[in-house]
Amino acid sequence: MSIPTLNTPAALIDVRRMRHNIERMQSKLNGLGVTFRPHVKTTKCSKVVAAQIEAGARGITVSTLKEAEQFFDAGIRDILYAVGMVPTKLPQALALRRKGCDLKIIVDSLQAALAISSYGQMHGERFEVWIEVDVDGHRSGVQVEDDLLVEIGRALVDGDMTLGGVLAHAGSSYEYDTKEALEQIAEQERALTVRAAERLREAGLPCPVVSIGSTPTALSAQHLEGVTEVRAGVYVLFDLVMHNVGVCGIEDIALSVLTTVIGHQEEKGWAIVDAGWMAMSRDRGTQRQSRDFGYGLVCSEEGEVLGDYVMSGANQEHGIVSRAGSIDTEIAAKFPIGARLRIVPNHACATGAQHPEYHAIAEDDSVETWPRFYGW
Amino acid sequence: MSIPTLNTPAALIDVRRMRHNIERMQSKLNGLGVTFRPHVKTTKCSKVVAAQIEAGARGITVSTLKEAEQFFDAGIRDILYAVGMVPTKLPQALALRRKGCDLKIIVDSLQAALAISSYGQMHGERFEVWIEVDVDGHRSGVQVEDDLLVEIGRALVDGDMTLGGVLAHAGSSYEYDTKEALEQIAEQERALTVRAAERLREAGLPCPVVSIGSTPTALSAQHLEGVTEVRAGVYVLFDLVMHNVGVCGIEDIALSVLTTVIGHQEEKGWAIVDAGWMAMSRDRGTQRQSRDFGYGLVCSEEGEVLGDYVMSGANQEHGIVSRAGSIDTEIAAKFPIGARLRIVPNHACATGAQHPEYHAIAEDDSVETWPRFYGW
Repeated sequence: MSIPTLNTPAALIDVRRMRHNIERMQSKLNGLGVTFRPHVKTTKCSKVVAAQIEAGARGITVSTLKEAEQFFDAGIRDILYAVGMVPTKLPQALALRRKGCDLKIIVDSLQAALAISSYGQMHGERFEVWIEVDVDGHRSGVQVEDDLLVEIGRALVDGDMTLGGVLAHAGSSYEYDTKEALEQIAEQERALTVRAAERLREAGLPCPVVSIGSTPTALSAQHLEGVTEVRAGVYVLFDLVMHNVGVCGIEDIALSVLTTVIGHQEEKGWAIVDAGWMAMSRDRGTQRQSRDFGYGLVCSEEGEVLGDYVMSGANQEHGIVSRAGSIDTEIAAKFPIGARLRIVPNHACATGAQHPEYHAIAEDDSVETWPRFYGW
Repeated sequence: MSIPTLNTPAALIDVRRMRHNIERMQSKLNGLGVTFRPHVKTTKCSKVVAAQIEAGARGITVSTLKEAEQFFDAGIRDILYAVGMVPTKLPQALALRRKGCDLKIIVDSLQAALAISSYGQMHGERFEVWIEVDVDGHRSGVQVEDDLLVEIGRALVDGDMTLGGVLAHAGSSYEYDTKEALEQIAEQERALTVRAAERLREAGLPCPVVSIGSTPTALSAQHLEGVTEVRAGVYVLFDLVMHNVGVCGIEDIALSVLTTVIGHQEEKGWAIVDAGWMAMSRDRGTQRQSRDFGYGLVCSEEGEVLGDYVMSGANQEHGIVSRAGSIDTEIAAKFPIGARLRIVPNHACATGAQHPEYHAIAEDDSVETWPRFYGW
């Protein structure tokens, strides 16, 4: 298999870039003295995760129990399910632990903590539970100074569960794009999560793990005193959103979608390609950033950026390629019917999710098929 | 299986609503004296397509050759691949025809027409080719009055291919929301496509099929003189975009995503649910319409609209449910942890594509699993 023989649209991973990204994150975190637990929701691909583990990752983070099941079956024991646990999902979690999976679950409410304790006691299972704290108003989590934090911790310990630690995710870091702002939000994520751990310890509760992370904060942290582990996901492939945030170059982005030119509207400066939103996803993450790439940045079949052509519009299986901000009436000559292009995506997690497999391009241009899964 | 036993997130189809939608479209088109060729890209689900055929559809429209292969294997012979054909996909099209599939392909350029003729002659295959015309500047297609139209037709006939007809898709109809504007764009789609057929016939070329369609224009057409068949896809499930366009009520929308409340940020009026963009898709199709539903409209587990709650934000596996335009600080009491909701989506094609299967809810509330496929 080689790139010219692939049907389009197809999701390509540049393996050299991917390995570079993995090494960059692992060595950054090694240097800061913490362990690294990558978030595998970005790729849901055992080949990618194997490369992350091989480079030094300790355990993984998952966003669904299906991911936990699939990666446990692939040989990974240490798994954090980083979405708030609800009672209806406890049987699935119990089944995983009974098979030998060291599954950690998380809560940010007293109700969920009590439900886990009650279910655990009923089934003779001591679940390991971490408490999610809110460090930036982004989404979930207990407020660090709220009494609720200690109440949840106590409910878990009194309920015979293992209080494993605290975790936070500064998801708002995606909204910044200067070194100073990123360093500030990274420090905020660190300091508030460490403070939550201290509050639990001051109340006589255990808190061995202090887990934080997002790709921008992990790459911007100046020190990680008090933190024991970091989580990040999209760094493994990177994308245009991360480029706009300022934590990678275009040349670091390891994911692209191979597509074929199928037509033109010359007077509008459009080339029509066979990658639409089904192949790219509907993610418009760069829409409100410093540079809006539409649905993606256009490169040659070999992966070279071709100036300022973007995918400016997308229907299900049609993409519109045009020059950003101007009309190229010569576009049919530049990208004739049958020409093949690569589109670099806004958001690697969303684009990958549209594809049953990646085509991994090695340095010698040989191609392997790397399956990924979806669903719940 | 019943709704309360389903894991979340899960894509539900209300079968009664779906059958009502199918009957509505089929009887509208029967009344207008044309055949109906539904676009199966919306569901990629053989159970849904079987119901469309049973109701009277003649053949199907597909957006990928994989759809053609899957539905041919499921017993459907008459298939239109409605994305511009390129040379690299001709071997796949040839293989389908050799197996007995009555596959039609489309072109809007002389290059593609010549490539098909050349490949067809080389392999002794008389491909049936339709010419795509542009009736609203939406995307692909030859201009109706352009000499190119007749040149393409002549190239196909001279190249020993079957010139099967013309087709158009007034995709811009999604941008309107008044009866008058929809009737006008429907008539424009009809009149221009019929005119293209006349131009081919005036030039002594055959044009048996005149195929048009989109859900809004199909439901708004007042007459279809000169048209032989209509295509439409999303009508089978409908969605919030179509509701804003004005061609369905909320109570007609047959697709929703079942989700569980996993947490709250009470002071912000947020309930956090386990359906994020992975379950809903990133489609924000209502963003620029008369009513912006965020990522979807919130209903009870039974499917009743619960006032003006929407999914206002989405991360990969987290959705934020809040009241549109105001803060409900009592949201934790209204939607407690473990509560189950249904989210009606913006765009049925995009939301369905995120799921490996639908859960079809019959009138007696029994549930069947209806698989769907993805990829290329």
